[in-house]
Amino acid sequence: MYGGIEAGGTKFICAVADEKLRIIEKISIATTDPQTTFNQVFAFFDQYPIDALGIGSFGPIGIQPSQENYGHILATPKEGWTNVDLLGQLKQRYKVPIGWTTDVNAAAFGEIKRGAAQGKRSCIYLTIGTGIGGGVVMDEAVFQGISHPEMGHLFIKRDPEDTYQGTCPYHKDCLEGLAAGPALAARSGIKGEDLPLDHPIWDLQANYLAQALMTYTLVLAPEVIVLGGGVMNQNHLLKKIQQQFTELMAGYTETPPVEEYIIRWGLPNESGVIGTLLLAQKELEDKKNRSLS
Amino acid sequence: MYGGIEAGGTKFICAVADEKLRIIEKISIATTDPQTTFNQVFAFFDQYPIDALGIGSFGPIGIQPSQENYGHILATPKEGWTNVDLLGQLKQRYKVPIGWTTDVNAAAFGEIKRGAAQGKRSCIYLTIGTGIGGGVVMDEAVFQGISHPEMGHLFIKRDPEDTYQGTCPYHKDCLEGLAAGPALAARSGIKGEDLPLDHPIWDLQANYLAQALMTYTLVLAPEVIVLGGGVMNQNHLLKKIQQQFTELMAGYTETPPVEEYIIRWGLPNESGVIGTLLLAQKELEDKKNRSLS
Repeated sequence: MYGGIEAGGTKFICAVADEKLRIIEKISIATTDPQTTFNQVFAFFDQYPIDALGIGSFGPIGIQPSQENYGHILATPKEGWTNVDLLGQLKQRYKVPIGWTTDVNAAAFGEIKRGAAQGKRSCIYLTIGTGIGGGVVMDEAVFQGISHPEMGHLFIKRDPEDTYQGTCPYHKDCLEGLAAGPALAARSGIKGEDLPLDHPIWDLQANYLAQALMTYTLVLAPEVIVLGGGVMNQNHLLKKIQQQFTELMAGYTETPPVEEYIIRWGLPNESGVIGTLLLAQKELEDKKNRSLS
Repeated sequence: MYGGIEAGGTKFICAVADEKLRIIEKISIATTDPQTTFNQVFAFFDQYPIDALGIGSFGPIGIQPSQENYGHILATPKEGWTNVDLLGQLKQRYKVPIGWTTDVNAAAFGEIKRGAAQGKRSCIYLTIGTGIGGGVVMDEAVFQGISHPEMGHLFIKRDPEDTYQGTCPYHKDCLEGLAAGPALAARSGIKGEDLPLDHPIWDLQANYLAQALMTYTLVLAPEVIVLGGGVMNQNHLLKKIQQQFTELMAGYTETPPVEEYIIRWGLPNESGVIGTLLLAQKELEDKKNRSLS
């Protein structure tokens, strides 16, 4: 039996699944202070004899096993959570193999194994909602360098007529500062979900996102890019992004046909939690393989 | 004995080295038409009993073994070279294992094994000269997706006072279009090497390059970024880039101290050819390991 935790700044989604990854029970716990939250997480998983656990956490997180902050949540605006040893708490409670990565890496893993990127060996998953974040799978494994990707915070070419200063507390007008949900709302004075389809902001939004997808393509060259998150509920946006991406790339490198290359998520709102269950499964398999060899 | 070819649009540098990678002979051949160039390459390597060959080529190139264009040079402005089967020509002539990647990937491999990034497991090598191009090593291996990195062509946030249109024939004001040698010269009316140290263009140049390094950091999180190429002969530029990088990142993710993180190449003008010899060695070792297992 596998356990999965998609640990977000607003809620923790916890699930248990059988050996075929069929979800048996799933609950959502509000993210309050760490101890209260952990107690609810423990109360849920204590009911099940889990063999492995997968965690996809909000970040930034420590991912270098050799470093002291491994398994911790690092500097976060979420009150009370900076330096919390999330992985350590779970390890202490459950003596099972535990997979550990970011929420968006887990979602990318979910999308490639069970979602829109199924059958591929590499993908990027980008979520565009309250923030913008990306996860990467290369050669069927979660991709991380000395730190995990933070692909929402790159700078892009601004439209000369766009004078909005941006919402990012670190970089002001990075991609997240210009194109996440709060920026859309602040700029137009209208909440994203209420913005009319013909509002000019959608073209700007598509251009900014397409620039980022072009950058990811030029650096990582994945087989497919999967888009998810609240802002992608705007159905007309995908086509605009595809068009702008094609124009911006100007045929420079060969990419798959754009309708197959830039696609919508296949597991809406579930990529993350399914990804954590898959991570749990992989962690258990890896452990078995290590003990065999 | 190993052979290495750094195949550039201006010249092919060919070298042979002994089993310890000590260079025995190295020549430079002008890149003219393919047949003339190949004849000179063959004349050089025919003299030596090479056991393996490494090629780092100007791009774009085909890197997917399953595709027909594998080993070919793809659409290139270099006259006569589009669709030339560079790898195939060498394979036909020399029945030895051959490693195949881009010139900048080879240089990244050279820098991590023998140059400024020695001892690391991951690095980015960025060359800033006539063009801007990058190579990537992750987990000690050359990194490629379905295509190789083309990291010089991403868009960056333009300085509002910079109205230069850019030199890139595909994207106009992408990084290469704004910050490679030709852009520097066209913008200032002075050749890069003659530009005074206090010319304001250097701050702009540092800002644009620092933005790109920030993007690479957020996407790939390498252990170190190595800068090379003609423009980096400007000694004062490195410090400006380091300063701007630190300011732009604004402490957002943890990176190594900037003086150790953004550094100058350790094998000036030789990273590429040494990288191809190392690729040859690796190809031979991989082949031996495959036949053992």
